[in-house]
Amino acid sequence: MGKLLIVGSVAFDDIETPFGKSDKILGGAGTFIGLAASQFNLESAVVSVVGDDFPQEYLDLFTERNIDISGIEVVQGGKTFYWKGKYHNDLNSRDTLVTELNTMADFNPIVPNNFKDADVVMLGNLHPNIQLGVIDQMEQRPKLIIADTMNYWMNHTLDELMEMISKIDVITINDEEARQLTNEYSLVKAAAKIHEMGPKYVVIKKGEHGALLFHNEHVFFAPALPLKEVFDPTGAGDTFAGGFAGHLTEAQNISFESLKNAIIHGSNLASFCVERFGTERMLNLKKEEVRARLMQFKELTQFNIELT
Amino acid sequence: MGKLLIVGSVAFDDIETPFGKSDKILGGAGTFIGLAASQFNLESAVVSVVGDDFPQEYLDLFTERNIDISGIEVVQGGKTFYWKGKYHNDLNSRDTLVTELNTMADFNPIVPNNFKDADVVMLGNLHPNIQLGVIDQMEQRPKLIIADTMNYWMNHTLDELMEMISKIDVITINDEEARQLTNEYSLVKAAAKIHEMGPKYVVIKKGEHGALLFHNEHVFFAPALPLKEVFDPTGAGDTFAGGFAGHLTEAQNISFESLKNAIIHGSNLASFCVERFGTERMLNLKKEEVRARLMQFKELTQFNIELT
Repeated sequence: MGKLLIVGSVAFDDIETPFGKSDKILGGAGTFIGLAASQFNLESAVVSVVGDDFPQEYLDLFTERNIDISGIEVVQGGKTFYWKGKYHNDLNSRDTLVTELNTMADFNPIVPNNFKDADVVMLGNLHPNIQLGVIDQMEQRPKLIIADTMNYWMNHTLDELMEMISKIDVITINDEEARQLTNEYSLVKAAAKIHEMGPKYVVIKKGEHGALLFHNEHVFFAPALPLKEVFDPTGAGDTFAGGFAGHLTEAQNISFESLKNAIIHGSNLASFCVERFGTERMLNLKKEEVRARLMQFKELTQFNIELT
Repeated sequence: MGKLLIVGSVAFDDIETPFGKSDKILGGAGTFIGLAASQFNLESAVVSVVGDDFPQEYLDLFTERNIDISGIEVVQGGKTFYWKGKYHNDLNSRDTLVTELNTMADFNPIVPNNFKDADVVMLGNLHPNIQLGVIDQMEQRPKLIIADTMNYWMNHTLDELMEMISKIDVITINDEEARQLTNEYSLVKAAAKIHEMGPKYVVIKKGEHGALLFHNEHVFFAPALPLKEVFDPTGAGDTFAGGFAGHLTEAQNISFESLKNAIIHGSNLASFCVERFGTERMLNLKKEEVRARLMQFKELTQFNIELT
């Protein structure tokens, strides 16, 4: 069975959308990635840090899903990372109202011994030096290292970011960030420049407009599933990444065809995530629902034009 | 062989993009629709109006492509519709600098006798009363009536627009216009409301983000092909519509599966249109190029997840 190592925040989110307020709930990139990946047949561990204000029942949600939490440090007397945000009416943009890094400010990830030989490493959005520190702890080069990042690190720690990018196989990045990183408006040109920085595979996330996978001259696209309602976009990108990494770990096959399927699995799981506040939908997601929606993705995208 | 009747402007465009200026060139919805449809095996006619300033060599471009121009009225002493616009740097928005309707202001389309039994009617964006007037001239109900429209008619002639919409089978409309017409942000909900207005099929165009086809509970999506350069977006939507209508006329098959393929053919041809100014690329487009890019569309979207 494949092993997936996940590194990312485990946090409190406090979300307001046009549809309501969540109050303080479970959130964080590591959480969303872990829950999405738990839909697959694999061994996984989340490496993170929380304070002693983090409820045991939240930690239990991980272990109940067979996610190893021995790498989640609980800092006595510390407080858990807290983010409060408010979405605008179209749900495509949001204002951050509060960011309290708390214990996350001094996060020093320790990879559990039995995950130092993980097949796949999924590095959630974090300071690039933290991401690099995880790579250094691996006993052998993983089959695939995937990292997510964001514009904050381009603005504040570009050298470290570039070093991190040079050491990974897959980057997941949104369209505006890809443009900022490369100074290219065309996503085709942006992806080509990012290839040159290191990653063999470039995944560009376009939110409600889907995701692109680039590998040299090859391009694959998965739409987001058109939904009647998007309730809360929080965690959609991380859920996408978790489904992507989860499928590849389960499949134990790192080919372009396999990455295409991983993109579909990620998009599929993200379509559930946005239906409820925070992790609510992902915590109550049945295998039959996932399968039925994969069928919808096929209907949405597959056609039959014979080229004679 | 299927017959396609096209109604739309034949005009002069004067385009400025970040890459250069076109000066006064051939343009108009009827032109782009006709050129795209001429890639298919069908009989087609364009119904339009121009002034006597419209060059014979432009008219010859239609007849060389086997497009019947007996329905293009040439008004002696009249001037041809002229549009001048300037695109912003991202090519996603533009300013209209000049619109001179000229002969188009009194356009009274006359359907040629041998196209009054057309299989498919493609009504380009025009005053809804003109679109209705064309439908009234048909000897028998065409197998499929497709109409394009825009927000201008929602703002100025909503009653006439609603009557036109009630009489067609397929509407092509962009995402912002679908939202305006229905007062729904979700495109799934917007499409459902437009179904209730009449059209069995709703095509929502999202520009560089692709196009959605809705038919009751069924949804299909085609991405725009990711391109290194978009040189001039003028005519892309009409080229899409021409490819869509052209395929359906050739296939003589009005099923959801057939409409899905039509969406792909339309997206495929639109991807060429934007590579050069105005009609330039469409006038120099070889069947082998079209076929090769259809293969790219397959690679871009087709995957193989077995659902056991």
